[in-house]
Amino acid sequence: MNRILSLETVGKIGEEVLLKGWVNARRNMGKIAFLDLRDRAGLVQVVGVPNELDEASNEDLKKARLEYCLEIRGLVQERGEKQKNLDLPTGTAEILAKEIKILSESESMPIDVSADTKNIDEAVRLKYRYLDLRSDRMKKNLELRHAVNKFFRDYLCDQGFWEIETPTLTKGTPEGAREYIIPSRLYQGQFYVLPQAPQQFKQLLMVSGVEKYFQIARCFRDEDQRGDRQPEFTQLDMEMSFVEREDVMGLVENMMIKMAEKVSPEKKIQQVPFPRLTYKEAMDKYGTDKPDLREDKNDPNLLAFCWIIDFPFFEKTEEGGWTFTHNPFSAAMPEYKEQLLQKKDIEKIIAAQYDLALNGYEVGGGSVRNHESVALRSVLEIIGFDEEQISEQFGHILEAFKYGPPPHGGIAPGIDRLVMILANEPNIREVIPFPKNGDARDLMMGAPSPLPQKVLDEAHIKLK
Amino acid sequence: MNRILSLETVGKIGEEVLLKGWVNARRNMGKIAFLDLRDRAGLVQVVGVPNELDEASNEDLKKARLEYCLEIRGLVQERGEKQKNLDLPTGTAEILAKEIKILSESESMPIDVSADTKNIDEAVRLKYRYLDLRSDRMKKNLELRHAVNKFFRDYLCDQGFWEIETPTLTKGTPEGAREYIIPSRLYQGQFYVLPQAPQQFKQLLMVSGVEKYFQIARCFRDEDQRGDRQPEFTQLDMEMSFVEREDVMGLVENMMIKMAEKVSPEKKIQQVPFPRLTYKEAMDKYGTDKPDLREDKNDPNLLAFCWIIDFPFFEKTEEGGWTFTHNPFSAAMPEYKEQLLQKKDIEKIIAAQYDLALNGYEVGGGSVRNHESVALRSVLEIIGFDEEQISEQFGHILEAFKYGPPPHGGIAPGIDRLVMILANEPNIREVIPFPKNGDARDLMMGAPSPLPQKVLDEAHIKLK
Repeated sequence: MNRILSLETVGKIGEEVLLKGWVNARRNMGKIAFLDLRDRAGLVQVVGVPNELDEASNEDLKKARLEYCLEIRGLVQERGEKQKNLDLPTGTAEILAKEIKILSESESMPIDVSADTKNIDEAVRLKYRYLDLRSDRMKKNLELRHAVNKFFRDYLCDQGFWEIETPTLTKGTPEGAREYIIPSRLYQGQFYVLPQAPQQFKQLLMVSGVEKYFQIARCFRDEDQRGDRQPEFTQLDMEMSFVEREDVMGLVENMMIKMAEKVSPEKKIQQVPFPRLTYKEAMDKYGTDKPDLREDKNDPNLLAFCWIIDFPFFEKTEEGGWTFTHNPFSAAMPEYKEQLLQKKDIEKIIAAQYDLALNGYEVGGGSVRNHESVALRSVLEIIGFDEEQISEQFGHILEAFKYGPPPHGGIAPGIDRLVMILANEPNIREVIPFPKNGDARDLMMGAPSPLPQKVLDEAHIKLK
Repeated sequence: MNRILSLETVGKIGEEVLLKGWVNARRNMGKIAFLDLRDRAGLVQVVGVPNELDEASNEDLKKARLEYCLEIRGLVQERGEKQKNLDLPTGTAEILAKEIKILSESESMPIDVSADTKNIDEAVRLKYRYLDLRSDRMKKNLELRHAVNKFFRDYLCDQGFWEIETPTLTKGTPEGAREYIIPSRLYQGQFYVLPQAPQQFKQLLMVSGVEKYFQIARCFRDEDQRGDRQPEFTQLDMEMSFVEREDVMGLVENMMIKMAEKVSPEKKIQQVPFPRLTYKEAMDKYGTDKPDLREDKNDPNLLAFCWIIDFPFFEKTEEGGWTFTHNPFSAAMPEYKEQLLQKKDIEKIIAAQYDLALNGYEVGGGSVRNHESVALRSVLEIIGFDEEQISEQFGHILEAFKYGPPPHGGIAPGIDRLVMILANEPNIREVIPFPKNGDARDLMMGAPSPLPQKVLDEAHIKLK
């Protein structure tokens, strides 16, 4: 007999079925025992009556405790009218057990996963993440994240994009954040670096003539932790050739609308087309470049997307020089191109940058890029790079731009934040299957951790 | 006017179209110039006649050289019967240029990408990978890999699997290969490790009740390079609860058959159902556990899948102890379970392991796992782990198995090798967008490379 899921039982009144799952609750009523059996789809009530069961099954029914993993063969019955529980999808049915078998036992649980775990100490939840994920809310978050990723992939494939994998062991570039480093065993004193984003690879793929690239990409930043940051995070990395700002914004806007309709049909997008604010308008009116435009902040189903455009390209550093506000690879808006090349009125240059905000969070940023070496060089010189630094850190992309680079642009929506908002969660750890804690530790695996001397020796490093 | 792709021109005879792409070839016939314009879809011939073009266009036509990036507006014409080239998908049409604009120029190319690049020195190809990928064969390989990954995702989603992301910064475990290490900045003297595979995470997801997990996962092994190895590679990581060996093998076999039909319809699978050999049969008859069963080794479209089963669980080490042949997390076949627990006749214990071979390559390996702590402990004790090592390296999974773990099993087909075989390529570098060379170097980015002292200081390490 093939095992079915709990939710399928309601359609099988009068049939014998095979179920497998976990004891979510147990109630003894004299000689009769009621179990709620939980599987990935939900719960169903099982009734254990001693004289319906053989001796081994009766033994296992007696032994079964919370979170034991069970296999149950039984008859699906309609519940009496008074016993029906209309809050439960399977609440009109129950299973009269004919055979019960314990597949594995459970010690007393460190956390109660039959209810929402959100008020349990997060350190305990993270240590026992594999149990925390048994709870209904966390499992729904996993499923939602899966659905969001699947939607984006399907949407972009339909539009002719190819998903292309880029390296995780690569070379560092100064895009703003500190990077994780990996000593090389084969090359003493040399290191790989984990990518902050596949920025340069996706631009090189445009030089390759791929034209439409995406990747649901893991990114790494060794930043000081605060609230919502994680050492590794996921973005929907995209790049397109022969596009202008409006092309990228239009595609992403339509994709987000369709995504919300598909995976979160209960949500309502407050305004379509998404409102657009210049950086100056946003700062003047809201004091932030990721304003929360929701008209009703208490409505959990309201999505207020907006675009922020016309960012200044550069800002003054404390030392009196210049730094880029977003991305050194961005182009200036066409009317500022000459100004960039001549390095004139630097503070007034507007970048071809666009950020997507949602309910007060930045959920994506991108730009049209400089595909001309001379313009990229101008950016690097403005931010104070000398020829050696330019050649060392940007040599490969400047070299690539010698060979017929197409005009191109892209964006990188953040998956963690998007799913967090769709799931109405307060932080991204709730939608990351195995997150680090606020101090960059994995409390479940115990990482980071010391390593044997032999391993350090092989990597040609010593501790300081 | 919206830009169209070269392949679309044949359906638009008599229409004016806008094309963008690269000069793949150029021929001057007196005053008339012929260009082959290449885009991601293919090639189309463009005819440049001076009196059809304005002055600026004539200037750009004169300047245009190989691999210049162009925008061309023109009229699609049917070629004269004698001019038709039936080897080219667009060979019945040509574009009479009305406007030509250079989007970017190209210096003389270091490699010729208008022909197959396979005979060019690989070091040069890898240094200029972004150009190498412009060639028809390499672009087809990118597209094939995209299609294979997309197929697997769609197939498994239809079967109710969820794709779940697992961490890249994690803790090491001794699954056999040397690992890449990442010094922690926040915890002096401690390290993250890059995963050899998400093996433990996927088993922990089974403890979570996810039941059907997959992930197209990046894996890392710091092994000595030989031929076909890469520091990072990609596998279709899968795990399922409540399954036996036949369930996993059946699902994967059907998935592979459907995948080949969809993405490589020109291929023929030699035998369905896939033949099965025991490890002993394979070694006795072919001297390898990944035999090439093709009846015609010269047929490029023949796929000879086979399963290898009944592997010995353990083998003797040089020191006279025991080590596992495949995976310490495997279960013994049910008839050997007692023997494993009693550590009797260790050399005769058969693992619930299955490998999938294709045309002489291993393209996937998996097993039903030990979900009982006592059995996993027995494996670890047989291979000589003491209590401290067990607790340090397997503590979290042994802890997890205290809480109602379901029976589970999985497999992990290797994407690189599968795509390599489908693409009839001789090594996996041809199907990895940005591979390292045989010495684990990225010749394009220049990784690994030395880092500034400041970066090492922050990571609390020194060079030896």
